[in-house]
Amino acid sequence: MPTLIIGNKNYSSWSLRPWLVLRHLGLEFEEVRLSLGSPDFHTELKRYSQAGRVPVFQDDLGSIWDSLAICEFLAERHPLLWPDEPYQRAMARAYVCEMHSGFAALRAELPMNCRAQQRRVEPSQAALADIARIEQIWQQCIEHHAEEGPWLFGRFGIIDAFFAPVAIRFNGYQLGLAHNSHEYIKLHLSNPLLQEWIAAGQAESEVILREEVGA
Amino acid sequence: MPTLIIGNKNYSSWSLRPWLVLRHLGLEFEEVRLSLGSPDFHTELKRYSQAGRVPVFQDDLGSIWDSLAICEFLAERHPLLWPDEPYQRAMARAYVCEMHSGFAALRAELPMNCRAQQRRVEPSQAALADIARIEQIWQQCIEHHAEEGPWLFGRFGIIDAFFAPVAIRFNGYQLGLAHNSHEYIKLHLSNPLLQEWIAAGQAESEVILREEVGA
Repeated sequence: MPTLIIGNKNYSSWSLRPWLVLRHLGLEFEEVRLSLGSPDFHTELKRYSQAGRVPVFQDDLGSIWDSLAICEFLAERHPLLWPDEPYQRAMARAYVCEMHSGFAALRAELPMNCRAQQRRVEPSQAALADIARIEQIWQQCIEHHAEEGPWLFGRFGIIDAFFAPVAIRFNGYQLGLAHNSHEYIKLHLSNPLLQEWIAAGQAESEVILREEVGA
Repeated sequence: MPTLIIGNKNYSSWSLRPWLVLRHLGLEFEEVRLSLGSPDFHTELKRYSQAGRVPVFQDDLGSIWDSLAICEFLAERHPLLWPDEPYQRAMARAYVCEMHSGFAALRAELPMNCRAQQRRVEPSQAALADIARIEQIWQQCIEHHAEEGPWLFGRFGIIDAFFAPVAIRFNGYQLGLAHNSHEYIKLHLSNPLLQEWIAAGQAESEVILREEVGA
């Protein structure tokens, strides 16, 4: 059976993305959870990937690492994960790539934490610019695709899986977001698959202090 | 005609990647070069992309930003840019994604600079780990695909375009690399398309001091 190697559900935003895509597709897979704070983490992870990062996906063919590469691998077999039309698909990929390589200030200052609820924080100018850009992306996508469905390009896709950790982040801290952003966050938080991930994250016993911003 | 909006050729590693793919494909396109250090850079760039980053690709369909999203868009029309076999393609994407989202220490400490030649630097432990991981990737790919051709997966592809700026970096600083890494760097530096880019970068008049490490 395919296996997904992930980090702590409470903290590992990268792990959440392909997990959500796999579950959305209804595919069966085994989960191997490695605890990010554990002293054995890197040694254990090296058994699955020399890149030294979670998530890693393994099936009969071999081992694939990186959240986006795993999603692209799945999308080759399940094309509904990207928009049908070539330019819309390119746009969705551009937003996903922007998330994949950017938003360093947001990542550092507002870590994903399933247990966090409206904690008080004082984001830097760089983090505020990251938040504003994400709200702009959501707003543009939602306006453009409202008639096709509630997700960013109508139906649920890789782009929504990439922004699911951001929905958890934005719910975790007091940020003063636009109405439309709250609607999109609510859509994520009412997704039973994401609820399952969040509940599992909240039930984990490990606490990593540097991720507990605003606690 | 399609247009590629790029930064300074001397410094903009992200811009080099899709430029090299477009030229490798023999596609005609116009270049718009915006100078990274210029006070008008962000204002001018906003005319092309709200993401605020180079490169941006424009054709009749619209505007696509992010180096990887542009390459994926081109690969949909020119499939030889990725390996043919699904698992090899997934591996190539995983390496490219690793480069796309990682190697922060390498980026910060050893900026791409076409003018730099074996400058003396003292990389941090994090940068040395980045360099070691890149040498490991190159070594594995070259060993595995040696019979198919000299590039990382045999024929030239997106993965080689993604590592082209690293070849320029590694040539720019004294790093004590393995023999195989030098061979792969030489392969890049003997590519007439890359030579054209480097010569244009060296001929630029702008100097951005924070990029002039080891000068």
